[in-house]
Amino acid sequence: MSSTSSKRVVLAYSGGLDTSVAIGWIGEATGAEVIAVAVDVGQGGEDLDVIRQRALDCGAVEAYVADARDEFATEYCMPALAANAMYLDRYPLVSALSRPVIVKHLVRAARQFGADTVAHGCTGKGNDQVRFEVGITSLAPDLACLAPVRDLALTRDKAIAYANEHALPIETTKNNPFSIDQNVWGRAVETGFLEDIWNSPTKDVYSYTDDPTFPPVEDEVVITFEQGVPVAIDGVAVTPLRAIQEMNRRAGAQGIGRIDIVEDRLVGIKSREVYEAPGAIALIAAHAELENVTVEREQARFKRTVGQRWTELVYDGQWFSPLKHSLDAFIADTQRYVSGDIRMTLHGGRAVVTGRRSDTSLYDFSLATYDTGDAFDQSNAKGFIEIFGLTSKLAAARDVAFGNGPDLGTQQL
Amino acid sequence: MSSTSSKRVVLAYSGGLDTSVAIGWIGEATGAEVIAVAVDVGQGGEDLDVIRQRALDCGAVEAYVADARDEFATEYCMPALAANAMYLDRYPLVSALSRPVIVKHLVRAARQFGADTVAHGCTGKGNDQVRFEVGITSLAPDLACLAPVRDLALTRDKAIAYANEHALPIETTKNNPFSIDQNVWGRAVETGFLEDIWNSPTKDVYSYTDDPTFPPVEDEVVITFEQGVPVAIDGVAVTPLRAIQEMNRRAGAQGIGRIDIVEDRLVGIKSREVYEAPGAIALIAAHAELENVTVEREQARFKRTVGQRWTELVYDGQWFSPLKHSLDAFIADTQRYVSGDIRMTLHGGRAVVTGRRSDTSLYDFSLATYDTGDAFDQSNAKGFIEIFGLTSKLAAARDVAFGNGPDLGTQQL
Amino acid sequence: MSSTSSKRVVLAYSGGLDTSVAIGWIGEATGAEVIAVAVDVGQGGEDLDVIRQRALDCGAVEAYVADARDEFATEYCMPALAANAMYLDRYPLVSALSRPVIVKHLVRAARQFGADTVAHGCTGKGNDQVRFEVGITSLAPDLACLAPVRDLALTRDKAIAYANEHALPIETTKNNPFSIDQNVWGRAVETGFLEDIWNSPTKDVYSYTDDPTFPPVEDEVVITFEQGVPVAIDGVAVTPLRAIQEMNRRAGAQGIGRIDIVEDRLVGIKSREVYEAPGAIALIAAHAELENVTVEREQARFKRTVGQRWTELVYDGQWFSPLKHSLDAFIADTQRYVSGDIRMTLHGGRAVVTGRRSDTSLYDFSLATYDTGDAFDQSNAKGFIEIFGLTSKLAAARDVAFGNGPDLGTQQL
Amino acid sequence: MSSTSSKRVVLAYSGGLDTSVAIGWIGEATGAEVIAVAVDVGQGGEDLDVIRQRALDCGAVEAYVADARDEFATEYCMPALAANAMYLDRYPLVSALSRPVIVKHLVRAARQFGADTVAHGCTGKGNDQVRFEVGITSLAPDLACLAPVRDLALTRDKAIAYANEHALPIETTKNNPFSIDQNVWGRAVETGFLEDIWNSPTKDVYSYTDDPTFPPVEDEVVITFEQGVPVAIDGVAVTPLRAIQEMNRRAGAQGIGRIDIVEDRLVGIKSREVYEAPGAIALIAAHAELENVTVEREQARFKRTVGQRWTELVYDGQWFSPLKHSLDAFIADTQRYVSGDIRMTLHGGRAVVTGRRSDTSLYDFSLATYDTGDAFDQSNAKGFIEIFGLTSKLAAARDVAFGNGPDLGTQQL
Repeated sequence: MSSTSSKRVVLAYSGGLDTSVAIGWIGEATGAEVIAVAVDVGQGGEDLDVIRQRALDCGAVEAYVADARDEFATEYCMPALAANAMYLDRYPLVSALSRPVIVKHLVRAARQFGADTVAHGCTGKGNDQVRFEVGITSLAPDLACLAPVRDLALTRDKAIAYANEHALPIETTKNNPFSIDQNVWGRAVETGFLEDIWNSPTKDVYSYTDDPTFPPVEDEVVITFEQGVPVAIDGVAVTPLRAIQEMNRRAGAQGIGRIDIVEDRLVGIKSREVYEAPGAIALIAAHAELENVTVEREQARFKRTVGQRWTELVYDGQWFSPLKHSLDAFIADTQRYVSGDIRMTLHGGRAVVTGRRSDTSLYDFSLATYDTGDAFDQSNAKGFIEIFGLTSKLAAARDVAFGNGPDLGTQQL
Repeated sequence: MSSTSSKRVVLAYSGGLDTSVAIGWIGEATGAEVIAVAVDVGQGGEDLDVIRQRALDCGAVEAYVADARDEFATEYCMPALAANAMYLDRYPLVSALSRPVIVKHLVRAARQFGADTVAHGCTGKGNDQVRFEVGITSLAPDLACLAPVRDLALTRDKAIAYANEHALPIETTKNNPFSIDQNVWGRAVETGFLEDIWNSPTKDVYSYTDDPTFPPVEDEVVITFEQGVPVAIDGVAVTPLRAIQEMNRRAGAQGIGRIDIVEDRLVGIKSREVYEAPGAIALIAAHAELENVTVEREQARFKRTVGQRWTELVYDGQWFSPLKHSLDAFIADTQRYVSGDIRMTLHGGRAVVTGRRSDTSLYDFSLATYDTGDAFDQSNAKGFIEIFGLTSKLAAARDVAFGNGPDLGTQQL
Repeated sequence: MSSTSSKRVVLAYSGGLDTSVAIGWIGEATGAEVIAVAVDVGQGGEDLDVIRQRALDCGAVEAYVADARDEFATEYCMPALAANAMYLDRYPLVSALSRPVIVKHLVRAARQFGADTVAHGCTGKGNDQVRFEVGITSLAPDLACLAPVRDLALTRDKAIAYANEHALPIETTKNNPFSIDQNVWGRAVETGFLEDIWNSPTKDVYSYTDDPTFPPVEDEVVITFEQGVPVAIDGVAVTPLRAIQEMNRRAGAQGIGRIDIVEDRLVGIKSREVYEAPGAIALIAAHAELENVTVEREQARFKRTVGQRWTELVYDGQWFSPLKHSLDAFIADTQRYVSGDIRMTLHGGRAVVTGRRSDTSLYDFSLATYDTGDAFDQSNAKGFIEIFGLTSKLAAARDVAFGNGPDLGTQQL
Repeated sequence: MSSTSSKRVVLAYSGGLDTSVAIGWIGEATGAEVIAVAVDVGQGGEDLDVIRQRALDCGAVEAYVADARDEFATEYCMPALAANAMYLDRYPLVSALSRPVIVKHLVRAARQFGADTVAHGCTGKGNDQVRFEVGITSLAPDLACLAPVRDLALTRDKAIAYANEHALPIETTKNNPFSIDQNVWGRAVETGFLEDIWNSPTKDVYSYTDDPTFPPVEDEVVITFEQGVPVAIDGVAVTPLRAIQEMNRRAGAQGIGRIDIVEDRLVGIKSREVYEAPGAIALIAAHAELENVTVEREQARFKRTVGQRWTELVYDGQWFSPLKHSLDAFIADTQRYVSGDIRMTLHGGRAVVTGRRSDTSLYDFSLATYDTGDAFDQSNAKGFIEIFGLTSKLAAARDVAFGNGPDLGTQQL
């Protein structure tokens, strides 16, 4: 656990071919010892102990596995839910959210294992390299970053050759057509045939969701929020992690949360992406409607601007930036009264809110009703309209005076 | 057609009980002659000639019917599509869009028939009174506004009594539980039992859409846009009106475009609203994805802020305001290259884009691909990340220096 | 101190003619007892004990005087400083800031004296009526509001007649051409001849500032901030109140902080206003430059949008609104490191920053210098520029392809 | 004028040491022929014919001098004036504005002289390299960029040695402590001793402005605008260029427009900058006040957000970006009625508006006045306030209900 005289590199380790080869590749290229760090953010797949052993077998001097699932759900997904974070109004920031929690564990490992460099397996044309490296230098300005694929010319062909040559305990034959990133908040898929943006996704692209075209019977769920955080589902208390998992299961069974978009990457190119985020999409729909009930109008209007900027920043790898921190303070303040129940019907790809119930509601039946009990004093409306419309009226009078009034047509009625 | 010595009031006439009674009610209360104006914005229902005759039978000195369907689709719905206008991210401004075109015809009639007042049937607690009156004074600052329900105490009970007493040719017995507003862009429904926001809508609330739970087979459609405007559907040229109607029919058959929200009214209260907008929702989904393909990233990001403000302004009855005009100039400029085809699958309440094709695309296969032909120079990434992340890195170094660095935990790994 | 069976009204009392007459006028019009409340926000002028006695002499059943100067400076002016709040980029919210603190004392008095109504002396066409009444109902939704000038037809002529008739101990003969509002943050003046917006202010308009045309010798001052709040001047510790007073004195002597603008009122009209705010203007200039040194770029950019909305809200009387509260949370977070010294020269109407010194500075000499010691790695620039400019480059290539490229002229060079 | 078989580079040529040496340096390093292009943006200094000849004497195969002064004033400075563009609320974008017009002439020359590369003299740590290179690739995506100082290691020491060795006709002995950029919109100065941000600027830093401490007598000026553009000064018709020059002279004589700030560079560092922009500052002050008189409130409020983004984009070198183009469309629309006269007093560093006069004013004396002729109907205010404040009132009632109401203190009054 102590640092030694030789240089040390902490590597974000997935257990796959590229990062398995990178252990030795980095060592040969830099002379450094490699510490492999794998972080569980709910991505499923192989057992992390298996992954840990593989890292050691591939030459890592240390291998550390962190279960960050609760931390990820609570400290990363819940703020995204509070922000109703949807990049391009569609994509709930799946990969962008997991990078900072992974970064935190990488930096922590670097500190404890005495490393001065953090390495990751990203290429040089994606968003994730930025998220890793800006995150790392934002948490630990003194650490260096290394991307073997980008910086040490570790191509896939070279990786296969290296693995075979060194008899690494990793599959090299399978040619996986998909590039996949998964965590509990969702799943991202890129694949060659989708690079033709006229092509539809095929069924084998999906894993978190069943086909919405042939759904099971409707599933009704009641989600209880406290201050913007889901705390119970159908009356059963849940942690944030459990809430996401449960909604992934139930919304996923209904085919909810499939997303297929052309997206603007931070590095300046547009790319085709397919996502699945059944739990995230259902939870955001519920949360947004509970905000409609409990958040004051002007607060809600400005919060959209704040939420959009928050989303851009997180997408752009600025999770640990000062602006993100200040936006969090704003958003947290808006969630004070976002408490209550949302009833939803999950069915055939749709998560539809059908009821809301909140002790902290700003919906006031006596003001809203047109029936007996109406408490709204309609006599105020005339004065309100007159003053509310005054600036437009004065501008319109000027338009008329200068011959720029409305074209009302000239034919006889 | 010439103005006379007696005062004249132009009344926005729907053919229903309230405005039929208002013809006489206004006359008795003010001594003015009433000109009834009905505007066809695609609301369907009764024949407009029948409505016109009813107005005359109820005592109107003139009755004028305007077919504004193409005008409404082209000059009001298409700008909303260009803005991807969704109030609260959900509601495509159905009623808010039709008010200004109705206002324009009312003002035109007031000018031609020599009226000095425009009357409408709205109550004193909704948005529409504001939209009518701010619109009217923005087009014609000299005209006065009158709302008999609000200003002349024309309650429903009084209306029924008046209609019976004067034997007006209008149904008074049916107690319609729904308050409905329809046009070609959508349909709005309010009703007593939905004022309890925990209640689900019942099936009889809907008219523009079939039940998405039991849809017919999938319907694939290709929509062609030119500069943000749909110009062909499945290769057949369409006008804006025809595009909306066709998509209403096809998306409506799949149960697309049902909306159920608690919404912030301009008059300061929250209300429960149910909308149907099958064509609008499908067209906006297609248009937004075509923008993802054709609009530059920063332009797209700022356009969201502009679109949100545009939507708020239109919701708030400021269609004819100077700011709306300037926002239109911004949005129009962004649509220059929003041309191409979007293929969608309509099914079971979902309008899902599956393909995009555009000569003016900014998606560049050679930059996006990870396969042979990759034209992206990855060597630029390192320098980009270093400079892009520099301000956060410097701020982080300060945090560390002042003991505000990240909490990385202290337990041994 | 106990409430009685008769109704009670708390009146915001200034000691002037209008509110002195209002004591009796309200009593006669409503039958209520009047409690006069005067709040010292640093407006200077008459001794508050004199004012208190006058209220009683004019018929108030109670008269309460609150020294809110420190509270006003600390809880109202300092947040405005943190926001660099300048309405229309010019006006530091003088009157708009004092209204909420006065409102708080009025509501407190209403609670303690058992009143159900709060009255104020504003007319029906200004901003202050809105600030008072929205503030009151935001703090105490059950209280009613009353404006005798607006609601009880208390014109100035009637006030003079009433005062003479009842021999009230208040001057009625002087025809003051100025309408003035003062507090420690500044001074607002309206007057008839300035309603012609081509007229210049005359010298007698000003009171807080000397003529900048003939200033005394330059005055150099060093202001020390901690987390956005001035804590010392020239090394001498100060409270917020003392900081404002001291800067009023020193900047006022140099003629700093005179403002003459046409301004957009909340009630929809434009009005001509003259302000003096020597301390506020000097402090904001110092604070803004310290932010330039200590706040990260993106945080600073978004803070301008937040500060603008904060300023609009406060101008519009929404001090106690939920959105204002959330914006405060954002702003407070940005001030964490706004600490250090600003040296300014005050002279002839100008408050010019000449030096900054901060332990929490983000200015890094080794990065900024072009001399020996340059730590900036210029080799990163090429990659940064390539990627930073990529979206514009791709858009430009499209422009060229579609014949919309730049017009570079055709004449031979 | 025809392109030849050898490669050609267009060099942005200033006539100074660095770019004079760069002519030969580029030739030796790349084998290309160099075409020198100097652009007159009103920077003054040496005669451009002298500069042209020097370029040829230093080895340029062609040398082209463009008088872009009117183009710069009309197409670059006037839009900045319309936007009231002030980076960090202080700096009127002096250098950032001239780069795009220079870029346009460089690209034009590259096209006409058959060059495939454009070179400039910037270092690798400033904003201007970004502005040049993003500008060039935005106008001509196929052109390459070259910065000899950054890319070919052309340090100052090497430049002096090269110039002496090759006997270039350029001064090498003077050690100029200032780094200066000038154009008609202003002047930027950096210098070593100002890199200590506690140091004041010394008098020799300034050139466009006289010392404001000892000004001549007051200078009153009337500026006439049409649609946001100054068209006359004191009744004499002026071009945009003439307006700026005249105001530079008159405001400069009064010491107006000195700016000293710490500024956020696009490349992520903070730097100390001193600017002089007498004409720009005076014109912006006049223009902004004319907007106060002529632009509707909500249009003016949103225009601040647009203007801020416009300014950031231009500062960041995105003059030719699609978003900038769309923002221009917005701003142009707002200037329709920005016409009229502004009277200012220029004196001792202050440009103070004292009168405004406009046929297209929205200031309405009959609404603003408190005297006879008041046309504002105060009876509307009560209803306006009630509805305008309703959302805050409802939120406040909730605060009270949940024990989060205001702290009004508990001591007896």
